[in-house]
Amino acid sequence: MSKRYEPLTPPHRILLGPGPSNVPPAVTAALGAPVIGHLDPAFLAVMEEVQEMLRAVLRTENRFTLPVSGTGSAGMEAALVNVLEPGDRILVCVNGIFGERMCDIAARCGAELERVEAPWGSPVDPAAVRRALAASPAKVVAVVHAETSTGVLQPLPELAEAAHARGALFLVDAVTSLAGAPLETDAWGIDICYSGTQKCLSCPPGLAPITFGPRAVEVLEKRKTRVQSWYLDMTLILKYWGPDRVYHHTAPISMIYALREALRIVLEEGLEARWERHRRVHQALVRGLQKMGFSMLVAEADRAPMINTVLVPEGMDEAAVRRKLLDGAGIEIGGGLGALKGKVWRIGLMGASCTEENVEALLAALAAVR
Amino acid sequence: MSKRYEPLTPPHRILLGPGPSNVPPAVTAALGAPVIGHLDPAFLAVMEEVQEMLRAVLRTENRFTLPVSGTGSAGMEAALVNVLEPGDRILVCVNGIFGERMCDIAARCGAELERVEAPWGSPVDPAAVRRALAASPAKVVAVVHAETSTGVLQPLPELAEAAHARGALFLVDAVTSLAGAPLETDAWGIDICYSGTQKCLSCPPGLAPITFGPRAVEVLEKRKTRVQSWYLDMTLILKYWGPDRVYHHTAPISMIYALREALRIVLEEGLEARWERHRRVHQALVRGLQKMGFSMLVAEADRAPMINTVLVPEGMDEAAVRRKLLDGAGIEIGGGLGALKGKVWRIGLMGASCTEENVEALLAALAAVR
Repeated sequence: MSKRYEPLTPPHRILLGPGPSNVPPAVTAALGAPVIGHLDPAFLAVMEEVQEMLRAVLRTENRFTLPVSGTGSAGMEAALVNVLEPGDRILVCVNGIFGERMCDIAARCGAELERVEAPWGSPVDPAAVRRALAASPAKVVAVVHAETSTGVLQPLPELAEAAHARGALFLVDAVTSLAGAPLETDAWGIDICYSGTQKCLSCPPGLAPITFGPRAVEVLEKRKTRVQSWYLDMTLILKYWGPDRVYHHTAPISMIYALREALRIVLEEGLEARWERHRRVHQALVRGLQKMGFSMLVAEADRAPMINTVLVPEGMDEAAVRRKLLDGAGIEIGGGLGALKGKVWRIGLMGASCTEENVEALLAALAAVR
Repeated sequence: MSKRYEPLTPPHRILLGPGPSNVPPAVTAALGAPVIGHLDPAFLAVMEEVQEMLRAVLRTENRFTLPVSGTGSAGMEAALVNVLEPGDRILVCVNGIFGERMCDIAARCGAELERVEAPWGSPVDPAAVRRALAASPAKVVAVVHAETSTGVLQPLPELAEAAHARGALFLVDAVTSLAGAPLETDAWGIDICYSGTQKCLSCPPGLAPITFGPRAVEVLEKRKTRVQSWYLDMTLILKYWGPDRVYHHTAPISMIYALREALRIVLEEGLEARWERHRRVHQALVRGLQKMGFSMLVAEADRAPMINTVLVPEGMDEAAVRRKLLDGAGIEIGGGLGALKGKVWRIGLMGASCTEENVEALLAALAAVR
């Protein structure tokens, strides 16, 4: 092997895309803590702290709360494959890419799929979900809290009621919303909730916090078939994260260190204060963009504060603008996905990236390049 | 939230268990490099380097070579779910826990399973595989290179020939062996090979290098059903790791940085030199253990150098010895798994952990506590 590789020197960026967000130095430092064994008593203590802190951030008492050893999408797959068996009926609320992804995974589980749709940029109507469930019940009602592809924040309590009124489990994707907007797993009646580390938790990507409430655990325990994924089989994983500590797979030690530190920072700020910061900085961004003549895709009442979709003005080369922001100002924002490709920018204000200073830097850079 | 959490301070350990192994400071430093976006041009360049270096370490020209976003077990699942469809026949060589795990996953794929077994501590006999394939062909022949539960190193070329003679794909688990013992993906005719980062690569756990050769890619392209796992669906993941760069899931940025650095270190040492170091240090360990009166589970010719199974003397409390090594000397070794629980210790000599100094420290500590 003659080729020489230089040391790694990635650039510093201000990360204002759809994730990852910037990682605080303390989290970076935790990543570099000494690796120890996944059955070392010192690591087991870290696992317990992570579970405690995850419960606090997810606002739940669920014993079954842990980080899945994969990214947010692994969390989605873990949530679905564990509760669905072939022939089970699931109702998925679809108003963007991540609702579509849930449908894709549910179909691979052999589930019978019902979609309740809303236009991209609008929330799903709880009345439509009630009607669909009245016509034909489902085992699971699934919805994305903050649809990262559109910037819509879906109100959850009414959907939870609709699901429970018909005996369905209520399953929520909180990949982008967790720790950036109010989310109350227990108080709102969410049975299964998963997230990702690289959004408002400001930890690098690689883990997916997940929680299963008592009704979901009962469904898991009463399965007639095995979970189709061994790697994501929660009946096995819980034996490692529970009191038995039975080896399943080697835990991603360094990432769990980082998550512990990221959660500690979230709880130190306080969830309410963090939600309020996201709301405040989001409003500053929208005000600034509107002053510059830009319009938002999503109506004011439906906006997710941590992921802002801005309409690209007619005739503007949106990719060139993003490239100039990246190269000139070191600022990353995202382009549109799927039906919104080329039509919107997606500006993330997540966790440590969500500051007034970053908004000012972005607005100034945008004014300079457009 | 009133509870306060202290800063993270995991102890320093000498990691001589079945993995993770100790992580070199340069890899730790890479973990802490600035997180950037998964579509940032600077990150795409890192991905290409990682793929190049993985090819060099796996000794393959396969274009389809990348790290799966999960631990080694996710690599196992990715390998199996992508090539198996319901009703496909797979022959699995079983002589330990990880062969059993392959059977478990294959069954969850709806595959028809044939097992060729050997006693725990012995390699599988290629003649038995040839006989089984002659009686009934299979789509895939799967085997573990270094069985981490027993310490056996399975010779591969003859098995590859047996598989190919009957038109089967040859699938190899190299989680523990990669970069610690000779492994020649292309020269030996391995069609699918996966590994883990936390063994002889000396990177933290969390990624699973995988490679698919042309015959395996053809099988993937001719599938009649969708891969049952969306998260591990290589037909989708390859669109992100290939020239199209289509978003699938957010790559675990920091772990990929660490893997890049770990691979760079492996190639800087040189694969042959690294294999030789593992062989030499392994022999020093065995000599020392035998001098102290211990016996090895595995016959000399069949030993995997990086994972050494030592018989626990009659009447000795093996868990107490391990605990004393950990608490007194900061040295981790592993206990037995499955049928070998309580009967063996598993001493790993992997990557950065594989040094004469560590062997001396372990032997001295063992002499003091037993």
